[in-house]
Amino acid sequence: MATAPSVSYSMTVRLEVPASGTAVSQLTAAVESHGGSVTGLDVTASGHEKLRIDVTVAATSTAHADEIVERLRDIEGVVLGKVSDRTFLMHLGGKIEMASKHPIRNRDDLSMVYTPGVARVCMAIAENPEDARRLTIKRNTVAVVTDGSAVLGLGNIGPLAAMPVMEGKAALFKRFAGIDAWPICLDTQDTDEIVSIVKAIAPGFAGINLEDISAPRCFEIEARLREALDIPVFHDDQHGTAIVVLAALTNALRVVGKGIGDVKVVMSGAGAAGTAILKLLIAAGVKHAVVADIHGVVHADREDLVEAPADSPLRWIADNTNPEGVTGTLKQAVVGADVFIGVSAPNLLGAEDVAAMAEGSIVFALANPDPEVDPAAARQTAAVVATGRSDFPNQINNVLVFPGVFRGLLDAQSRTVNTEMMLAAATALADVVTEDELNPNYIIPSVFNDKVAGAVAGAVRNAAKAAGAGA
Amino acid sequence: MATAPSVSYSMTVRLEVPASGTAVSQLTAAVESHGGSVTGLDVTASGHEKLRIDVTVAATSTAHADEIVERLRDIEGVVLGKVSDRTFLMHLGGKIEMASKHPIRNRDDLSMVYTPGVARVCMAIAENPEDARRLTIKRNTVAVVTDGSAVLGLGNIGPLAAMPVMEGKAALFKRFAGIDAWPICLDTQDTDEIVSIVKAIAPGFAGINLEDISAPRCFEIEARLREALDIPVFHDDQHGTAIVVLAALTNALRVVGKGIGDVKVVMSGAGAAGTAILKLLIAAGVKHAVVADIHGVVHADREDLVEAPADSPLRWIADNTNPEGVTGTLKQAVVGADVFIGVSAPNLLGAEDVAAMAEGSIVFALANPDPEVDPAAARQTAAVVATGRSDFPNQINNVLVFPGVFRGLLDAQSRTVNTEMMLAAATALADVVTEDELNPNYIIPSVFNDKVAGAVAGAVRNAAKAAGAGA
Repeated sequence: MATAPSVSYSMTVRLEVPASGTAVSQLTAAVESHGGSVTGLDVTASGHEKLRIDVTVAATSTAHADEIVERLRDIEGVVLGKVSDRTFLMHLGGKIEMASKHPIRNRDDLSMVYTPGVARVCMAIAENPEDARRLTIKRNTVAVVTDGSAVLGLGNIGPLAAMPVMEGKAALFKRFAGIDAWPICLDTQDTDEIVSIVKAIAPGFAGINLEDISAPRCFEIEARLREALDIPVFHDDQHGTAIVVLAALTNALRVVGKGIGDVKVVMSGAGAAGTAILKLLIAAGVKHAVVADIHGVVHADREDLVEAPADSPLRWIADNTNPEGVTGTLKQAVVGADVFIGVSAPNLLGAEDVAAMAEGSIVFALANPDPEVDPAAARQTAAVVATGRSDFPNQINNVLVFPGVFRGLLDAQSRTVNTEMMLAAATALADVVTEDELNPNYIIPSVFNDKVAGAVAGAVRNAAKAAGAGA
Repeated sequence: MATAPSVSYSMTVRLEVPASGTAVSQLTAAVESHGGSVTGLDVTASGHEKLRIDVTVAATSTAHADEIVERLRDIEGVVLGKVSDRTFLMHLGGKIEMASKHPIRNRDDLSMVYTPGVARVCMAIAENPEDARRLTIKRNTVAVVTDGSAVLGLGNIGPLAAMPVMEGKAALFKRFAGIDAWPICLDTQDTDEIVSIVKAIAPGFAGINLEDISAPRCFEIEARLREALDIPVFHDDQHGTAIVVLAALTNALRVVGKGIGDVKVVMSGAGAAGTAILKLLIAAGVKHAVVADIHGVVHADREDLVEAPADSPLRWIADNTNPEGVTGTLKQAVVGADVFIGVSAPNLLGAEDVAAMAEGSIVFALANPDPEVDPAAARQTAAVVATGRSDFPNQINNVLVFPGVFRGLLDAQSRTVNTEMMLAAATALADVVTEDELNPNYIIPSVFNDKVAGAVAGAVRNAAKAAGAGA
């Protein structure tokens, strides 16, 4: 599967080249002949004999970028200077900051922002704790909490290395929903400890976004925090993904003209995202679901399940899917299926497996960066194909969901988040795509569609108010 | 003791008054005759018969402000509208926010700030954890941690009601030292739990500012965290106060021409601030100190101390002060003393007690809002008087210290904070006042003196580097 050059693997290379001759024109040719793409070329100093040129190059990987730089070095007369990585440059010193809303210019300002004036505000909250949502940042503030145990596709890289993701998440919260989020990266992976820490830090926040915490701990942590806290707790890897998948499936079914209660859905992956997707699809009306994990199709009699505890996630899957008792492999299960949803591992299926699905099949191959099936191969027979990648149509991206969901929860001062609110979010997101716009390559809007966050937020806010979940 | 009207008790009152007649001129007169002060008078709508006027009034307390409003109501022809409290208005929605350093305009930006580009930055940190100080917000970020157990003079008001103070503190960190601080208000007052929580949240921060945690728990919490963490932990109520007191004392001694090793110091208060001040003064060379608490002068034979555990703070005081074995009351102890430092309770001493001190006496009466002795009374005989209040000369204010101390620690990437760094901070702060400027009413600079934070930061940074404390 060919990958397009991306700015996320982008370098700026400073070069000195002779002012006359063909060196400059050779630069672009060299980059392009090696599969890169020149996205910027600035002459930053010029003389009679020499030019200094900053060439910005997009590549497909770090190794590819290094290789392109070497090809530039080979051009006659070119002297290679500093190579800057644009993504790393953007991360220097971190991506977010704290800002004060009021200037502190003089003693009068100081006496209101801090002592002695602040004391009266504290006393007002001590007398009426609900005033904290009016007189502090609590109302608009979310903690992005991780233990670094399941970061992106990188695995258990720990809390420090998870920081750039959590900062990015905080930046997205602000960009798409005006929410003030702050990363809390925990130096513990003990379930009890994480639960007690998040409970303890909750007063300063109106919501908790759990992020990149590995299964099955993430289920217990979320469940116990929801029980303990009076603010919503939302594990985005589970529910953000589930909501965007349900929205995309809703529109894909509109494209192929099938009903959600009629289709046979085969899922690959029984981790955090898979389990949450499954539960939300069932709540939305899916009746025929089969789940496969690394050991094949999940069914009640499977050896590793017979003795599984009653509250284990796999047990829940076995009890709530596969009513026909299908056994065997994923490849066997997808034969005749209407919908395939993968949240698992790369390259599990081939074009022939997709061809064996039912007429008008829907394939969501969401493993990142390499999907369960090559989307180009899937498209040969599937009616609708979606991936998690930004370089194919129909990107299934949580950024479509979590900002709006939290905006709605915060606006409703909701104490909780429940399945009805998530279903409402999915419907609202699906409905952003109008009948006129809907087609196999546009089942889900772009993350930069400015209707998305507001639509999701409104639906969640209304669902929260209808549920009486507000503070 | 007369108190001046303050904007921290400031209301804006909307009034309708007759366009003709003397009502307008009566407004100011009414406010002033009742001890208030008009700080703004805006005509916000005007007609032939009526004017709408917004009058901003500073008072000395909430009750005083209410009383003034009632007096405005009494003026003939005046109709009272909405009364807005400026301090509360400033707190609506909280005082701080999260800001993104980079715009996220398009997919290219997104792919660098978040996935997939961010993954490379995460991996770089996973491979070299020290890179977190380069590639994340850690380098410039401080947690302001409280359990709400000893907030200002308000006592144990809990974590929610403490939020306005912690937000204010965060705003001051930014204003005076460019530091990104975030409030972490803990819903627990259990020492073990606080220690484990702060340990766990530490990865995202380069320093921990403990705030408003009651004694004696604050001592153990700080000591255990310092032992456990590789970032500096600084309880501002203790050490911020100690540093500014030492700086002020240094300059007060310059004014009266006495040496720090020669003076007899009497302290009132053996809590968090008192203990820390005492320890820093001893480290700075004070040899003759006597401490009194609510039970009188602390000495080794005092009934409540005979059986105190060896590691109790009071025991430390008994072992390290009062070499002459003085007993009795605070009033008895101050007779003949050179220096009185109060961090305790209002109105413990009278003018006659200050008069009984040695020639050239120094009085720091820091209880807030009402000092241990009326500063006006103290000034009758004392050579130098300082308080914690902003409406007298020589305000002893932590804001002079904590921004610069953390700036220095962060710039040095210090893993710790020690007594040498605090002594350096005090010397640097004292030295901001030049010989030409020094006088009994100017022993300490204003918090808005723009040399302060840089001087303190530089001294702390150098001391940290000299100690090899950097990362």
